[in-house]
Parts: sequence; C-alpha cells; structure tokens
Amino acid sequence: MQCEIIVIGDELLIGQVIDTNSGMLARYLNTAGISVGRTTAVHDSADDISNALNEAFSRVNLVLMTGGLGPTKDDITKTTLCKYFNTRLVENLEVKEHVMSLYKDRPAVLNSLTATQWLVPEACNVLENRVGSAPLMEFLHDGKRLYCMPGVPHEAQVAMEEQIMPRLRELACDNVIVHRTVIVYDIPESSLALRIAEWEGNLPSYMHLAYLPSNRMIRLRLTAEKRSVASELAAEADKQIAELLPLIKEYVIATEDKPIEVLVGEALKQRHETVSTAESCTGGKIAELLNRHAGSSEFYFGTIVAYDNSIKEYVLGVNRKTLDTVGAVSQETVTAMVCGVRRLMNTSWAIATSGVAGPSGGSPDKPVGTVWLAVACEGDVWTEKRCFRGSREQITTQATIAALVMLHKKMTSEYNH
Amino acid sequence: MQCEIIVIGDELLIGQVIDTNSGMLARYLNTAGISVGRTTAVHDSADDISNALNEAFSRVNLVLMTGGLGPTKDDITKTTLCKYFNTRLVENLEVKEHVMSLYKDRPAVLNSLTATQWLVPEACNVLENRVGSAPLMEFLHDGKRLYCMPGVPHEAQVAMEEQIMPRLRELACDNVIVHRTVIVYDIPESSLALRIAEWEGNLPSYMHLAYLPSNRMIRLRLTAEKRSVASELAAEADKQIAELLPLIKEYVIATEDKPIEVLVGEALKQRHETVSTAESCTGGKIAELLNRHAGSSEFYFGTIVAYDNSIKEYVLGVNRKTLDTVGAVSQETVTAMVCGVRRLMNTSWAIATSGVAGPSGGSPDKPVGTVWLAVACEGDVWTEKRCFRGSREQITTQATIAALVMLHKKMTSEYNH
Repeated sequence: MQCEIIVIGDELLIGQVIDTNSGMLARYLNTAGISVGRTTAVHDSADDISNALNEAFSRVNLVLMTGGLGPTKDDITKTTLCKYFNTRLVENLEVKEHVMSLYKDRPAVLNSLTATQWLVPEACNVLENRVGSAPLMEFLHDGKRLYCMPGVPHEAQVAMEEQIMPRLRELACDNVIVHRTVIVYDIPESSLALRIAEWEGNLPSYMHLAYLPSNRMIRLRLTAEKRSVASELAAEADKQIAELLPLIKEYVIATEDKPIEVLVGEALKQRHETVSTAESCTGGKIAELLNRHAGSSEFYFGTIVAYDNSIKEYVLGVNRKTLDTVGAVSQETVTAMVCGVRRLMNTSWAIATSGVAGPSGGSPDKPVGTVWLAVACEGDVWTEKRCFRGSREQITTQATIAALVMLHKKMTSEYNH
Repeated sequence: MQCEIIVIGDELLIGQVIDTNSGMLARYLNTAGISVGRTTAVHDSADDISNALNEAFSRVNLVLMTGGLGPTKDDITKTTLCKYFNTRLVENLEVKEHVMSLYKDRPAVLNSLTATQWLVPEACNVLENRVGSAPLMEFLHDGKRLYCMPGVPHEAQVAMEEQIMPRLRELACDNVIVHRTVIVYDIPESSLALRIAEWEGNLPSYMHLAYLPSNRMIRLRLTAEKRSVASELAAEADKQIAELLPLIKEYVIATEDKPIEVLVGEALKQRHETVSTAESCTGGKIAELLNRHAGSSEFYFGTIVAYDNSIKEYVLGVNRKTLDTVGAVSQETVTAMVCGVRRLMNTSWAIATSGVAGPSGGSPDKPVGTVWLAVACEGDVWTEKRCFRGSREQITTQATIAALVMLHKKMTSEYNH
C-alpha cells in the first residue's frame, strides 16, 4: 500500500524551518507496510493545498497532511479542506472541553483566537490531539482517506502514535516492508560498493540496497518489500545480512540503525561502566550526544568543555609547559586532558578532543581540520590524529563521531581480544 | 520569479535522512528574488524523477534538483536525465582531472566506480563541484532551466554559493523578496496575534505575516514581495516593523532572525566579556550552542557538565548537605553551581541548569519538566524556576533556550537600567 505526504507551511519553502515531520511519518508508515511514494511541501495557500491534494489522490488513496492548523491568520488548512470536501466549519464540544482543560491554568490563552480551535469541518471525524489544541481530522471520501495533523513536531508524533497508526494498521494489507542497516566506518563509498558488488548483484528483485554516507560513516540499508509474512521476510533479510557481514567485517561498527552514542551507551550499561569527556574543539557536542537519550545518568557522569587554555591548565591539569611548547592541539595535551578528566570525574572511561575547528586558527603544520582524539580507561590511553575537511560544523561533527567510534571500538572488539 | 525544488532519495521517503537541502536552497534563492513554489521529494526511480520534473516544468521554468549523483547502483539521476533530455553519457576530461586531483592522496578511491563520476550527459553544461566528485549540471532546454547538484549537504551548499547563484543572479528580474523577523519570548501565540491584530490587518497586500512558535519563542516573520527596488521595499518593511515593536516591546528579545546563542555571543563580544556554564539536565546543550559558531573562543571559556552529583560536589563545590537536604534540582544547588563554575573558569558571566529532564525521575513536588536556572556575574546571582512540558528532548531544549534568554536579558535591557 502506498501513500503520499503533504507538508504545509510558507516557513518550509523559504527555508526558515526544516521539515522533520515527513520523515517521522514515513518511519511509522513503514512499520505498517505502507510506503511513502512522494512528499510535497506547499505554501499556506488554498490553491496550492487543493492542487497538491488532487494530484496526490490521482496517484494514491491515502494522504497524510501536516501544518496550517494553528489559530493565527496564516493557518488556512481547515477552511481550505472545507471547500475541498464541500463542507462547513462547526463547533465541536469535545474539542472545546479538551482545549479548556488544556489551558485551565493559563487563562490568558483562552481568548477569541483559541476559540477557533474547536471549529472543525462537519464532514470529518475528529480525533483527539492529546498534547495540543488543534484537532486531528480524518476525511473518508470516495474510497480516499486523508489524515490532517498539526505541524508542531511533538503534536504530530503523538497524533501518529496514538490516533492515526491504530487506524492504519486496521487497513492492514499483507504487504511487508523490512529494513536492515549495517553501519561501517572509514571505508570510501566506492571501495565499499566494489567489495560487495557480487553480493549486491545477487540480491533478489524485491530487495534493494542503499548507501547513506555521512561523517566518514556509511549506513548500508537493505530494504525488502513484498507480499509476505513479516517474520519470513525478516528472516530472508537477516540471511542476506549474514552473508554480507564477513565481506566487510573490519569496517563494521553496528548491525542496527542506532546512532553511535546509543551504541556506546548500551555497551557501557552492559558493562556497568561510566564515561566522562574533556572537550576542546568539539565544545560539548560529545556530552550533548551522550546525554541526549533517556537513561544516560547510568553511564554518563560529566564533561569539562575546556575551550580556553586556562581551563585546560587549571581544571584539567594540563601542564602549562606542554601548552606553551607543543600547543593545545597535540598528542601530549589530549593525553593530559583525557587523564585529567577521568581522574576528576572518577569514571571507567574518558574521551578527550583537541583540534582546529576553523574557519581560522590553522597553521602549516596544524591546518584547519587537524584533530587529536584520546580515549582512556584504567591503565590505558590511546590517541589518534585525524585530518578532517569541511566547515567548522562538519569538522566538529566528524571529530565527535570519530571519538565515539574510537571509544566503542576499544570497549568492544579490540580491547577484549 | 518562481522555481521548484526536487529532492531525490529513497532515504528521504523512509525517514532515514531529513532533507535539509531544500531549505538551504530556498534561503539562497530568496536573496535573488526567486521564490520556491513547491518542493517535491521522490524516490531514486526513473519514472518518479521524470514525472516530478514534467510536473514542475508545467508550472515553472526553473527547477533545482539534489541527490542521486553518487557512484553507487542506487544513484540513477544522471541516466534518468539522459533519457529525459534525449542525450547520452560522455567522458568529461575536466571532471576526470578534478576527481583525480581530489583523491590523489587516497588512491584506493580511484577505482572503477569512481570513474563513473566523470561520465556526464552530453547535452548539459558541466559546472565545477569544488568539494566533491559528482559533477554539477546545468540543462537549458526550450526556455526551461534545470540545475542538478549532489545530495551531500556541504557539496550542495558550495555548488549553490559558487556556481548556481551567480548564474541565477544574471537572470535578475525586478521581483524583490524581503524578510524581517522579530523574536518574542514568553507570550502565547494567540495572545500575541490578538495584541497585534489591528497592525496586522492594516498591512499592505504585498506583505504577509507568519508566526513560527518553538520552545516558548515565537519568530514573527514579515515577508514583503513585489516588483520594486530592494532598498525601497526594505525601507517599507522596516517602517512596518517600527510600528509593530511598541505593541509588544516587553516580549521582544531580538529584531533579526538570529539564533539566541548568536545574540548572546554578539552581546558578550561587544562588552568584551566571557561566559562559562555549569549544566546538569541540559547536559552540554548550552555549551554546544555557544561553541557552534566561528569566533566563540573570544567569549566562551568552558563548561562543566555536572551530570552526576559527585561532579556537582567535587568539581563545582556544591555543598554535600545542600544536595542531601534540598536536592540537586533546587535554587540552592543551581546557585552554588553557577558560582562554582564562574569562580573555576574565571569568566564575567556564568549560567547553570539543574532539572528533571525525564522521562523518569519526577516526584510530586518536582515533576518531570521542573528546571532551575541561574545566571551570575560579578556581585549578582539570579535564579528562576521553570516548568516545561514534553519529551526529554523538548524539556532540555526549552531549558537551554530559557537559560540563554535569561542571560541575554540580564546583559542587555534589565541589567543596564
């Protein structure tokens, strides 16, 4: 079963806001065997919305729509849909009660504009938006099906999880989509493709491989899609992956699509160990990643972002002489940093980074992109020098990923063998 | 002048990768008075790409396309365009030389797959991709114009900046697009809309206001678009903004569309002052923001992410008794943290956060979302308790923004009056 997504909002088309909703919707839809054929972003314009909807319904019977449901003047999705489905806005008492209770401790919000939130098209089924004031709408018309939800990402996600997916799963068809991901590091895309060309060439017609490179990491995604039983197609995909892995084993860092910080976190939790970080050029990026997911307090203790040299010296205990002679971006400094933070935070492991993030600050022997990384545990310190290319953002992101990959490798294969 | 964007890639339609390119392209296009009418995301499928291109060209004469230019099997944009424009792939010696030089220190990459990168459609003008191996392509056909660039965001951005925009600016029409943004904080969207309803109602027809709420911040964007002289339309927009500001002055934190961390950085630089942070629940998010932009070493010194209580005690000097009696999420702790880090890092200003990010760890008197914030400077400490709603990610993001807004306010209006 195929569907299309329409995302509405001027802000998307002038680049002021990045659309993350369509990706979120696609991930949910895939779990029910529904694939997304196309995503269209249009302005808050009645004509643009109606045209996009007409075109989508000429190709598919299911459309999901986000955005334009707020109370302000620029939000016109509801009135546009009234015209499209030849219906009118009516007051919905359930929505009214819900909005009243939502804002009971913020009376200022219960004004005349908020009151437009409980006006809904008469021809639709209203679904509850538990976390917001804009109603969710289901239109069933001529065998076509349209779901509308707010553009606020959290509200759209809850709508999908709690209201829309249960309804879509009931439409269950026997089409199954299975994704498998293998993450490799430090091999160029073309070398990887040549190495696995024969295996890829032998994939059955209903399986498809994609290469997703970013920050020296490539996510290899195998997608299998056919009418089948989910567990059988999953087993088939797993069999293919089992044949792939021996071909690339020295580059593989994971066989599931999880961010590197989650892999690191899981390895630490399994070993009941902890980590701290001392960051210079990455400026808190590693800390932010390690702390992003629930449960991080089990393994993540803390970080010193030692951006200024005085912090490296006074807080982390890097020798002034080291900083003066070999400089902050050096094996000696990063070693002192990693030992300093591990001692200070009393953790099993520590990570340190020091580099030239740019755009200025480079020199002939330490050009922009030069980064020293260090990982330490009881009795051991490893260091690594990397030369990254790109913008400041790219260099610090690549350094962050490289440091986490380094720790992950030390914790898993290498250090245990 | 209007254009459309087509972004190509299965990864976008299964939600594995979020498209940031179309937003970047739109921001560039707007500067040349070109608006984006629609963005379409399609699969790596010859039919889908051709259909999307046909439809786009039925509406506009200019199309920008990203993705599907890599060397691997799933990348089919070049062959699809050959068919579409009835041409064939030919070897391009300039591209060959460029790719050779790009990988001269990585001979493993110069393999048979990479060699496909210098095969280009005969009917197109090849433009240099300075930072990657996939050629940029310009197709001019029957008064229509198509630009193709890689999906890798950095490569697409350099292509746009260096190759495509100079060509588009030559097409210069006298259409002008001007955006002005006012950022407000701590006022609900509907209350804001009511307060400025009269002003908004009196805007001329070629001006349009949009509300972009996120993390308790609303970016109010005024867009003016008409055939005009850029400086005149800009002056008109500025006049409208000057009338708007007195209506909402107590909520305004900025009159330009800059992230709060940039506003904070600019204020610090102007005052030749520095900042450090002590973060618990925000876990390095404030550090990461302050350090994200070039030049941050002028004002940002460092951070202690004191996620575990032992770090709060031993590194930041929070009294053990305080932690045992009133707990980590308290006015006392956040005050000790902010003073501790300011002393340790010897900075003009400091920020501290401590809260319950969730999803677990809440209690009746400190539910998930409770966050204490502190800002300190020489001789003064301010604290603030906030109750945020939402997921862990939302709570830590809202706390990060709130802390930066708090520092910005203390530095600008409030503290100087």
